[in-house]
Amino acid sequence: MMMSQRVREILSYYDSENPGVRSSIARFLNHGRLAGTGRLVILPVDQGFEHGPARSFAPNPPAYNPLYHFGLALEAGCNGYAAPLGFIEAGAGEHAGEIPLILKLNNHDLLLDEHDPMPAVTASVRDALRLGCSAVGFTIYPGSAYRQEMYEQLREIAEEAKAHGLAVVVWSYPRGSGLSKNGETALDVVAYAAQIAAQLGAHIIKVKLPSSHIEQSEAKKAYDAAHIPLEPLAERVRHVVQSCFDGRRIVIFSGGAREEDETLLEEVRAIRAGGGFGSIIGRNSFQRPKPEAIALLRRIMEVYSS
Amino acid sequence: MMMSQRVREILSYYDSENPGVRSSIARFLNHGRLAGTGRLVILPVDQGFEHGPARSFAPNPPAYNPLYHFGLALEAGCNGYAAPLGFIEAGAGEHAGEIPLILKLNNHDLLLDEHDPMPAVTASVRDALRLGCSAVGFTIYPGSAYRQEMYEQLREIAEEAKAHGLAVVVWSYPRGSGLSKNGETALDVVAYAAQIAAQLGAHIIKVKLPSSHIEQSEAKKAYDAAHIPLEPLAERVRHVVQSCFDGRRIVIFSGGAREEDETLLEEVRAIRAGGGFGSIIGRNSFQRPKPEAIALLRRIMEVYSS
Amino acid sequence: MMMSQRVREILSYYDSENPGVRSSIARFLNHGRLAGTGRLVILPVDQGFEHGPARSFAPNPPAYNPLYHFGLALEAGCNGYAAPLGFIEAGAGEHAGEIPLILKLNNHDLLLDEHDPMPAVTASVRDALRLGCSAVGFTIYPGSAYRQEMYEQLREIAEEAKAHGLAVVVWSYPRGSGLSKNGETALDVVAYAAQIAAQLGAHIIKVKLPSSHIEQSEAKKAYDAAHIPLEPLAERVRHVVQSCFDGRRIVIFSGGAREEDETLLEEVRAIRAGGGFGSIIGRNSFQRPKPEAIALLRRIMEVYSS
Amino acid sequence: MMMSQRVREILSYYDSENPGVRSSIARFLNHGRLAGTGRLVILPVDQGFEHGPARSFAPNPPAYNPLYHFGLALEAGCNGYAAPLGFIEAGAGEHAGEIPLILKLNNHDLLLDEHDPMPAVTASVRDALRLGCSAVGFTIYPGSAYRQEMYEQLREIAEEAKAHGLAVVVWSYPRGSGLSKNGETALDVVAYAAQIAAQLGAHIIKVKLPSSHIEQSEAKKAYDAAHIPLEPLAERVRHVVQSCFDGRRIVIFSGGAREEDETLLEEVRAIRAGGGFGSIIGRNSFQRPKPEAIALLRRIMEVYSS
Amino acid sequence: MMMSQRVREILSYYDSENPGVRSSIARFLNHGRLAGTGRLVILPVDQGFEHGPARSFAPNPPAYNPLYHFGLALEAGCNGYAAPLGFIEAGAGEHAGEIPLILKLNNHDLLLDEHDPMPAVTASVRDALRLGCSAVGFTIYPGSAYRQEMYEQLREIAEEAKAHGLAVVVWSYPRGSGLSKNGETALDVVAYAAQIAAQLGAHIIKVKLPSSHIEQSEAKKAYDAAHIPLEPLAERVRHVVQSCFDGRRIVIFSGGAREEDETLLEEVRAIRAGGGFGSIIGRNSFQRPKPEAIALLRRIMEVYSS
Repeated sequence: MMMSQRVREILSYYDSENPGVRSSIARFLNHGRLAGTGRLVILPVDQGFEHGPARSFAPNPPAYNPLYHFGLALEAGCNGYAAPLGFIEAGAGEHAGEIPLILKLNNHDLLLDEHDPMPAVTASVRDALRLGCSAVGFTIYPGSAYRQEMYEQLREIAEEAKAHGLAVVVWSYPRGSGLSKNGETALDVVAYAAQIAAQLGAHIIKVKLPSSHIEQSEAKKAYDAAHIPLEPLAERVRHVVQSCFDGRRIVIFSGGAREEDETLLEEVRAIRAGGGFGSIIGRNSFQRPKPEAIALLRRIMEVYSS
Repeated sequence: MMMSQRVREILSYYDSENPGVRSSIARFLNHGRLAGTGRLVILPVDQGFEHGPARSFAPNPPAYNPLYHFGLALEAGCNGYAAPLGFIEAGAGEHAGEIPLILKLNNHDLLLDEHDPMPAVTASVRDALRLGCSAVGFTIYPGSAYRQEMYEQLREIAEEAKAHGLAVVVWSYPRGSGLSKNGETALDVVAYAAQIAAQLGAHIIKVKLPSSHIEQSEAKKAYDAAHIPLEPLAERVRHVVQSCFDGRRIVIFSGGAREEDETLLEEVRAIRAGGGFGSIIGRNSFQRPKPEAIALLRRIMEVYSS
Repeated sequence: MMMSQRVREILSYYDSENPGVRSSIARFLNHGRLAGTGRLVILPVDQGFEHGPARSFAPNPPAYNPLYHFGLALEAGCNGYAAPLGFIEAGAGEHAGEIPLILKLNNHDLLLDEHDPMPAVTASVRDALRLGCSAVGFTIYPGSAYRQEMYEQLREIAEEAKAHGLAVVVWSYPRGSGLSKNGETALDVVAYAAQIAAQLGAHIIKVKLPSSHIEQSEAKKAYDAAHIPLEPLAERVRHVVQSCFDGRRIVIFSGGAREEDETLLEEVRAIRAGGGFGSIIGRNSFQRPKPEAIALLRRIMEVYSS
Repeated sequence: MMMSQRVREILSYYDSENPGVRSSIARFLNHGRLAGTGRLVILPVDQGFEHGPARSFAPNPPAYNPLYHFGLALEAGCNGYAAPLGFIEAGAGEHAGEIPLILKLNNHDLLLDEHDPMPAVTASVRDALRLGCSAVGFTIYPGSAYRQEMYEQLREIAEEAKAHGLAVVVWSYPRGSGLSKNGETALDVVAYAAQIAAQLGAHIIKVKLPSSHIEQSEAKKAYDAAHIPLEPLAERVRHVVQSCFDGRRIVIFSGGAREEDETLLEEVRAIRAGGGFGSIIGRNSFQRPKPEAIALLRRIMEVYSS
Repeated sequence: MMMSQRVREILSYYDSENPGVRSSIARFLNHGRLAGTGRLVILPVDQGFEHGPARSFAPNPPAYNPLYHFGLALEAGCNGYAAPLGFIEAGAGEHAGEIPLILKLNNHDLLLDEHDPMPAVTASVRDALRLGCSAVGFTIYPGSAYRQEMYEQLREIAEEAKAHGLAVVVWSYPRGSGLSKNGETALDVVAYAAQIAAQLGAHIIKVKLPSSHIEQSEAKKAYDAAHIPLEPLAERVRHVVQSCFDGRRIVIFSGGAREEDETLLEEVRAIRAGGGFGSIIGRNSFQRPKPEAIALLRRIMEVYSS
């Protein structure tokens, strides 16, 4: 496949990596309706594990079936599909080679209330390889008392993944006893969490859209001194992109719970304006009938490709 | 052996697995009186470890002898027999090749009261291979503070088992400080526990029959919004089956303590009506004289094969 | 050596094991004055570690010397000798091939009071192999908060030992915060501890002689319902033997602290009458002058061979 | 390259090491404007991880870009550049072979307040090798309740690094519940921390400049008895150098937060006078415009080369 | 070299070990002024790590230099020299093959007050091999809540060391919440600690000289019953030697902090009279000018060789 100029540029940011890793990153950038644009829309479906099956799939019962999500990602023209081991195993054979896959290697459930969450490692790099995936996904919770353990698990997984030519996608979600509830999406905290993921060697970083709140007082001094703009959202996106090695690491954003379509599209426009690389759209797509989901995903992709 | 259409269909759900794993799953589906029907009745005998020898075997003293259970499973025509290391070692040589075996790889005793139970790993995939077993069994307790550790042990065991062509059977029993006593069998919790086992890569999932209670308030909203029926039992079974990848994973149900035969058969009929794949019948079979046990098991099998 | 009918029968219980393991078990059954009878008297000397040197050896100072115990076991005609790494290393070279040895792989000292004891692993299967031992010994404390850790250590050791043709001897001593002091020797608890050792894959199980106390209320219901006799001692021995796979696992009994000879012999008669496989005699033998110890051991062996 | 007499002497201190390690140490001593002098000025940039991106880079926004720091170290003529995995990966390809690199293998963030800090291991010796680094860097916190864990991680890493011909650089920063805030830079504590790093096998030791405070009362007696001078700063530097095997291990000093240039240069003169091997200059260089940073670094190098 | 009768006898105690281990033990027995006598005086210098550099070396500043201690041990004619990794690395190259070395594999610092001390593992068997050492040294603290962890670390290290032909030297220092301050040197506790080291497979055991205090009440009964003499010191030494397998394991004694020379020599005479194998002399030698240290060490050696 011909590489676009932009994809070639993005790949150059990763020139310390072996050709296997660079090929895997390229696979996401060159798949689907946004192929070649340097932008990404990815479908993630790990809510069955993270929130339970009824909360995730009862709003749109066909989504109980793992094959449904492969179909949705393919039909909508997403750049890739991310899910835990069971969901990937249940469709990787039937859809082998059709779409770049991200195997989520850790997961967390809600059957116990925890102040400092710690996901379980639920799959391996070897699982990703035998299932034909192009990347592994891993969640870290900066702010949790167990964050060191997560960073060390990621270190080991990332080293093994890179040695085997897989891309490393990190979900960096600040959470835990080090942070207030508002702090989880504070601009300083989200930017810090993105930086940590980048320093840990992530190729693709996924964070939540930041609010204009600043959580840490030492950070506040720096934001004030440097007059870092807190509004509008596009400026906050720009700051997070800057915090990811000045734009030399792919960073994508998630919305979270179901939102009004217009709100969501507004956010996508801000991500695009701020230099973000794209979106990860889960509940907003698979919790509605497939035709509606495809329509929405296409509108999002149009924003990114415009 | 000729594969029935239904067995062929079930095996197709596992088409990401190697032929070794698919052959092992097929061995259970094609053994005993229910061979070829896509339904399963399995004899599990781990109560000697889980509850102690007298509580388990004194009601029917021949059951102290490990050879007894091999005989019972064979004579009744069960699809397989599951037990801990000692019980399997004590009969695997004499009955080599006669019935598909599940080696239970973790176990828990009652000699210490615990709020958050954590079983010990008591056997390995290599033990299962040297003893000629077709599957490994593993118990997880979603809701326990140690659940992550169990999930990670299962992850490692499942990867090794699959690489060696063994099927993976997961007992998913919600328990621990995250749940009320009623919550352990609540519909939302049982469905969530089944989903977790499926996402962890289980081939066969074993849960308790769910009550109509809903434990978690966030889940309750989803059940109400989607009008998920809580009655009768067959509907709850159907919801659990749906939560196991829309029926694309084998899920079987257990009753628990000894019950009246009619109650038990009523439950079996509900499992069948709700699309469940079968039953696991322990204390209700081995705690009565063998002829009575065989008679009961055959009545159960008749329900499933009708 | 010609195998007696009884030894051949006992070995048949272990027919899932490789010939190496069965040969090692046979070595104990075919050594010493009880060779061929299916009964065993074993000399264990781990008290130097467990209680300290003066408490163990000052009553009979030649016993400070590790060679003394090899000599005692040989001269008395015991079936085997068990000790920790240091004691075995100090004599295995000089007495190579003279008597079947059990290397105790874990030990516990009394220099810190603990509610929930946890022994340290102090030697390995590889140590046992390089020292020419026929078995490894391992202690578990069912009832301790650390029991899972012990079970898992045993699991790993037993798998390695069996793969290398060694027998596995388990000391199963209920102890810890799950039990009252009386509960440590209660019949239900001793039987449960024996069952756990058997389920963990032990070839030879060593427990204390049980009292007629029943510790757990759930167990009490089962004992009452089944009218399991609590008296005399021989009946309790029979129940423990039954709890070890209906007599299909070798179970031997220890007395503990020094006792009157007649009391001890009375116990031995009860073990024999109840179908127990033999005794493990430590402090009652090495804490008296060697001629007296040999005389006592021979009287014990006479009971067993009569 | 011709070895100067001084470099040859320093290398002789490491004559138990293999030629690979000695070559790696030589690479730092023979690079940049101080090549051959036996003195070192190193650029470390781990503050993005340790303090967050805005606090680190907002004062000089080009520093968000990882390539910036490679350029700064090269243009200023530093002996080496040290950073975490992400920053090294982002430039090691483009600048391969241009400057000796130190991959920092552990890092710590500030998203949770901790009394006893414990960094996470965030990269490996194998990462250092694949990225063309000449050394690994590792931080220990003597005084933390987790120090043993850090020492043991360092032990393992140092053994692997030396076997592969890499130099080992240790940041030894006293911190944690064993020390008062003043104690972290107390002369006795800094000297003790330097000694620990040396005994752990570090080739290059990095400590903070010590104050004249003495923290531990037992140490105070020794300082008083031996009349160890506490003033001026050069004497304290001399004591730390002596504590690093009497000058037979390379020890360099850091300033910490941004300071007035004159203060900084005064400290550098004291380091030189006291026999220190050099400086590690982070925030004082990369938090100002590049030309100013280069000017300052050159003035520092002039002190060392004079 | 010709083996003396006594050395030959001592080596016969270790006849379960491979020739590599026996050669390493012989190397200590046949080196220095006490070569061939069966007695040992060893120089240990780990105080830089254990107490800090100023407390250790300020009384005699040349001792900051690691080469100083190699020279001291050589000139005084010690049987061996023991130190942590850094000190050994700093001189092993220059003094290769000149004196038998003991690499201390674990160490503990005083920068945090602890009730139950736990040393860090700071070097490996492979380090000992690459540095040309004849033995590894390891400290255990019987009485500490972490003693099991230390025993298990020692188990692993000892197995690896023996397989590679190295001798195993164990410092057994009772300490921790299981003991009173006086109890740390109580006769029963020191004898118990020596026995534990021997049972763990140590070849050479190093303990402190015991006081006449008896710590544990159960032990007291045994000491009273057997009339074990508590005075004079030589009798207590004899009891410890007896507790080390009746003299079939090498046990040496340390004095501790600096003492009057006459006191020290009195102790040495008691060690000799009680059958001890020698002394380990640290602070009493390296904290005074070298000529004085050599003079003292020679007087000690004269006692042992007389």
